[in-house]
Amino acid sequence: MGCILNQTHFLNARLADGTVADLTVEGGRFSAVAPAANTTPPTDGAVDLAGKLVLPAFVEGHIHLDTSFYGDAWRPHIPCTDGFDVRERVAFQMRNLEQAAPMAERAKNQLELCIGHGSLAMRSHVMVDAAVGLKHVETILAVREKYRDLIDIQLVAFPQSGILSSPGTAELLDEALKLGCDLIGGLDPASFDRDVKAHLDVVFGLAEKRGAGIDIHLHDRGTLGLFEIEEIVARTTASGMPGKVAVSHAYALGDISAEALARVGERIAAAGIAIMTNAPGDHVFPPVAALRKAGVTVFAGSDNIRDSWWPYGDGDMLNRANMIGYRSGFYEDWELEAAYDVVSHAGAKALGLEGYGIAVGAKADFVALRAEHIPEAVVAVPKDRKVYRAGREVARGGKVLA
Amino acid sequence: MGCILNQTHFLNARLADGTVADLTVEGGRFSAVAPAANTTPPTDGAVDLAGKLVLPAFVEGHIHLDTSFYGDAWRPHIPCTDGFDVRERVAFQMRNLEQAAPMAERAKNQLELCIGHGSLAMRSHVMVDAAVGLKHVETILAVREKYRDLIDIQLVAFPQSGILSSPGTAELLDEALKLGCDLIGGLDPASFDRDVKAHLDVVFGLAEKRGAGIDIHLHDRGTLGLFEIEEIVARTTASGMPGKVAVSHAYALGDISAEALARVGERIAAAGIAIMTNAPGDHVFPPVAALRKAGVTVFAGSDNIRDSWWPYGDGDMLNRANMIGYRSGFYEDWELEAAYDVVSHAGAKALGLEGYGIAVGAKADFVALRAEHIPEAVVAVPKDRKVYRAGREVARGGKVLA
Repeated sequence: MGCILNQTHFLNARLADGTVADLTVEGGRFSAVAPAANTTPPTDGAVDLAGKLVLPAFVEGHIHLDTSFYGDAWRPHIPCTDGFDVRERVAFQMRNLEQAAPMAERAKNQLELCIGHGSLAMRSHVMVDAAVGLKHVETILAVREKYRDLIDIQLVAFPQSGILSSPGTAELLDEALKLGCDLIGGLDPASFDRDVKAHLDVVFGLAEKRGAGIDIHLHDRGTLGLFEIEEIVARTTASGMPGKVAVSHAYALGDISAEALARVGERIAAAGIAIMTNAPGDHVFPPVAALRKAGVTVFAGSDNIRDSWWPYGDGDMLNRANMIGYRSGFYEDWELEAAYDVVSHAGAKALGLEGYGIAVGAKADFVALRAEHIPEAVVAVPKDRKVYRAGREVARGGKVLA
Repeated sequence: MGCILNQTHFLNARLADGTVADLTVEGGRFSAVAPAANTTPPTDGAVDLAGKLVLPAFVEGHIHLDTSFYGDAWRPHIPCTDGFDVRERVAFQMRNLEQAAPMAERAKNQLELCIGHGSLAMRSHVMVDAAVGLKHVETILAVREKYRDLIDIQLVAFPQSGILSSPGTAELLDEALKLGCDLIGGLDPASFDRDVKAHLDVVFGLAEKRGAGIDIHLHDRGTLGLFEIEEIVARTTASGMPGKVAVSHAYALGDISAEALARVGERIAAAGIAIMTNAPGDHVFPPVAALRKAGVTVFAGSDNIRDSWWPYGDGDMLNRANMIGYRSGFYEDWELEAAYDVVSHAGAKALGLEGYGIAVGAKADFVALRAEHIPEAVVAVPKDRKVYRAGREVARGGKVLA
């Protein structure tokens, strides 16, 4: 036992299994989780959680810290001129960003939104291309440093303008990894860069060279997207990178037959590739239940929050769990628990987080909210939460404390 | 002008058009809406809305006050044994209701949830069948009476077990209308009662006899549902009932080609039939934009809230607008405004509400919340609202004031 002065006691925490426990935090980690002793009145300095549900802090698995306008002036969405086109959208984004508040400020707004709702671990993609160079990466790296006491952030060097399409990007991605990005990204190797092999050669090549993880944006639908997933599976297995590769969006998995899905699902699981979805509203997305059944780690993120791509997003991963459940037709308790798992334990697994959970030895990063159990939390999405980082209250009612 | 003592002044209200106005309420209605005079400090007794966005109270167009367990014990969802079956679900509901808290108490919980979020007009379906008789109707009529100062409620006598399938129901529906229900309901004339003509004969016959409106639950998909909609259109036109008929759910409209939809959309619009959707998460629903373009009044409701049918629902019609926009791929400002219209002005039109809006002569039933404009309110869904009924604050931060 450490010095008593370094301990904090949290009394009457309702755990996910329905039991009520007293939690002790020491050095930022749980040192004891014991049945509630019903200490009345609470001992000096103890925090009485009064039966609130205590959940490990949510995992924001896919966000873009550099491109949101949250907290800045409202920018009306403008559609592409002739159906959706990624290049046109990127150009629109560049114009928008030129007029926006400084990136660090916008990133900070978005971070505080996420922390306020209880996400204390995050994976953010950060744009790298020939036009912006490493500017976004440098800015977001500095923001990460400033917020390191509040939130753990993984950064993905994201080739928003493609790799082959934007000459010099491969070298910039390499540089971004050297600067401190944790993962290398990719973007629709087929539809965007028109060369699956060459695109993946760069992505997997740099990942091996720098010992980095991989998280690829894959919007390609149907058999094309499926082909790319198969290629990513093959390379992941060949590179000995299980557990270090994710495919974000992977809409194709929502396009294919149940039989084809079961087949590819098993291969994705065997390769240790995680699949990220934000449960989009108006088109297909990876079938969460079927993939989980196949053993795939499915995690989630807000994706864009109020940016050049769409106006939605609230940075609330519990609300994202609600959306995942709603879009997936999850009604039973175990299904609602699965939706929650996607934004918590499965997210932690996908991100390779150490010490995640409410357990002795785990980091004391947690959220306390009023709900009887996880299923109720997922359908009710109570907003009046308290958020604790290393056992210290850092946010309340959606706001980061000063 | 009435006596000054009966006036309430609301200063610095941001209106939907972006202007800031001072509002005067007299006798429960707006007697003046004028450009803000920037009175600093505010005159005695005036309420400074400090630039908050003021919207007319939301319209909850489809809810089931009798069957929710909101505020009662959590009841885990149990799926049907072999695919979804309405009869099996109704039987499950009956068992659940037998063990639940008194209906009046549950209805009250649900009403306060809705009022707390800013809905002050509502259409609730209330179950009528051979088993429960008029028990639900009598209970909910009494609850409506108790809440009449807070919310306007229309009740639909809803044949939850069919009309032909549950002998004696036609007579009970007639009795329900005599007791005070405003509309007569229906339920899948084809798939449930297996006789479209006979089912609609009862519904339209009773509506004509009692001068009641009609709101029919129609879950039937594809060409079958489309056929039923065509029959409802024909009867509505023949009965001279435009503006008094609604079809709820109408999933079939989400199943058909754009050409077929344009054709039937025009006919629905010409017949003055309103279409209700809650933007379900995992299957098709009426295409909101296309129907609005055809001139159809599309309105919305929470539908079930935490009952035997599903665990979702939060009674927040602004969040419903968000869901409608998200599910419809509404990104542009005018589209987000359309999503809002569905839960407000279009809802008022569907329900035939008198005096709806922020305008001189309209009822002073409104919501004040922090947003720059309607598009931002729809994407941000701010929860910290103040709700005013006839100019009097009745709810704050989601809670009805004592």
